[in-house]
Amino acid sequence: MSTLSTVKPYVIGLDLGGTNSVFGIVDSRGEIKATTTIKTQGYATAEDYVDAACDALQIIIDQVGGIDTIKAMGIGAPNANYYKGTVEHTPNISWAHDSVVPLAGMFGERIGLPVAITNDANAAAIGEMTYGVARGMKNFIMLTLGTGVGSGIVVNGQLVYGSDGFAGELGHMIVRRENGRPCGCGRCGCLETYCSATGVARTAREFLMTSNDSSLLRDLDIDDITSLDVSLAAAKGDRLALSVYEFTGEVLGEACADMAVFSSPEAFVFFGGLTKAGDLLMEPIKRSYEKNVMPLFLKKPAQFLVSSLGGSSAAVLGASAIGWDLQTQGNNE
Amino acid sequence: MSTLSTVKPYVIGLDLGGTNSVFGIVDSRGEIKATTTIKTQGYATAEDYVDAACDALQIIIDQVGGIDTIKAMGIGAPNANYYKGTVEHTPNISWAHDSVVPLAGMFGERIGLPVAITNDANAAAIGEMTYGVARGMKNFIMLTLGTGVGSGIVVNGQLVYGSDGFAGELGHMIVRRENGRPCGCGRCGCLETYCSATGVARTAREFLMTSNDSSLLRDLDIDDITSLDVSLAAAKGDRLALSVYEFTGEVLGEACADMAVFSSPEAFVFFGGLTKAGDLLMEPIKRSYEKNVMPLFLKKPAQFLVSSLGGSSAAVLGASAIGWDLQTQGNNE
Repeated sequence: MSTLSTVKPYVIGLDLGGTNSVFGIVDSRGEIKATTTIKTQGYATAEDYVDAACDALQIIIDQVGGIDTIKAMGIGAPNANYYKGTVEHTPNISWAHDSVVPLAGMFGERIGLPVAITNDANAAAIGEMTYGVARGMKNFIMLTLGTGVGSGIVVNGQLVYGSDGFAGELGHMIVRRENGRPCGCGRCGCLETYCSATGVARTAREFLMTSNDSSLLRDLDIDDITSLDVSLAAAKGDRLALSVYEFTGEVLGEACADMAVFSSPEAFVFFGGLTKAGDLLMEPIKRSYEKNVMPLFLKKPAQFLVSSLGGSSAAVLGASAIGWDLQTQGNNE
Repeated sequence: MSTLSTVKPYVIGLDLGGTNSVFGIVDSRGEIKATTTIKTQGYATAEDYVDAACDALQIIIDQVGGIDTIKAMGIGAPNANYYKGTVEHTPNISWAHDSVVPLAGMFGERIGLPVAITNDANAAAIGEMTYGVARGMKNFIMLTLGTGVGSGIVVNGQLVYGSDGFAGELGHMIVRRENGRPCGCGRCGCLETYCSATGVARTAREFLMTSNDSSLLRDLDIDDITSLDVSLAAAKGDRLALSVYEFTGEVLGEACADMAVFSSPEAFVFFGGLTKAGDLLMEPIKRSYEKNVMPLFLKKPAQFLVSSLGGSSAAVLGASAIGWDLQTQGNNE
């Protein structure tokens, strides 16, 4: 029971995305000491996924000195429930599509450590708060603009989980009540049908079909256009591609204005593929926010920031931060 | 310094409304031991208002045993800022219309007690959480349906004040982007233009003008119709009046569905004049919420509750609860 023998300097963070699962072993200063990646898809069952994950994990655990150096594990995953330790009915993951998978418990049994899980966007928010551009902030909203739109809301320095663990689904605010685009959630007009990577591609297709303006995008097969194509065209000054970003920013700014009346955040922090467009996207968001927000909130205007944590680091670090918290809770019990 | 000599069993709660200012002296069990009311309007300056208030207060302070029995004072007021102790640019109060009034400090100087102030809807939320239907809840949203629509949001058992103290302005969520009704805040389509008492009266006028249906409301001068008239007609089964409540509930249900994705509350608690319509309003709200909310949130559906604290008691008790908190903070400093 000497202090030295119980020092466990690392936690494992897992960013479980729709395509890749990125593992990092992280020290208390937020340095990623070892990392590995497996594909998220292609497993028949959740057990098969966990098997593959643990095989990959073992290698990096050995690299940092073995399991005795690890305190806990934190997981960021879509449709994760922090309270229950599960991923539930996750549309984009075949082995969790139609079921409730107790992923925290499954990893916990296999590696013999306490494991916590949360929404991938919540994990990214904790990462930003601990190591990134939201350091020291008590009230901010993280919006992840990827295949969908995720969110992590921090109020009074705490993540908002709500009564059931599912709070922070801002990608499913209704932003267009009339003729809204159909959403994977079964409703129409959700924010993520407009402001995700797929939403941007869809906007481009709509603009191409409803105008005769020339555009570099017309050289492509319209059904194959991606948000990356739009970004590349916009970077070359393509008018139509630029108007796609203008529209996307307008919708996002309107949505942020409605978020402001809820929690009056100090900042909106953006993360994910779409933010690579930089000011092409951020400037229209800010303009739209200032035009649409209740004047009261312009006295001390919210900042609009892009994540400073490169690649999937924010999510891995965020997931790891949940691991630290869990360990602390465990000690208090 | 004996314990007995420092026992101060009461706090003062002030519900500062657009018309009346209701004072209550409250004990630690939430019993109002003495109460008095003054008009809020009719004073040239904030100083005049505080003078009149302190004259009225002195009488009930004497009734409960003098100032030495009072620990602190809490105020619930429109456009109040908890962090700064002010009421700011309050449209409905002449002596605070064009200015920032440091009301907490002004009362504090006059009565020699610590004084805290918050939004009237926040005060009502604290009242419900401490003594009312939200007792024991950690995550709920209070909506006050009066002249305007106010809100108090509780997350993790704490009121959401946001970065600047102005969080919880849900009456100013934009619920109609196309042809929205003009709002006092300078924008169009805010929730409170539809779901406040004035919003209900306006809906009735619109419905009367755009249809030829017979209605008891046609016996009234259309410009003088109030939400009370609509309520009385609806209680008699008047079709047009009932459709006004149906529409009001539909808009409120849509708005609550968007609030759910933010904080996934255990309950929505309604307070204020419009709730006197009871199920005429509550049933359409629930139907609309269930139709509009993201399916994920129907697994553990939010409750829709009406305040159990009669009249302005919720606000007075809520304001007093802020007083208790303040005293505790003071002791810790």
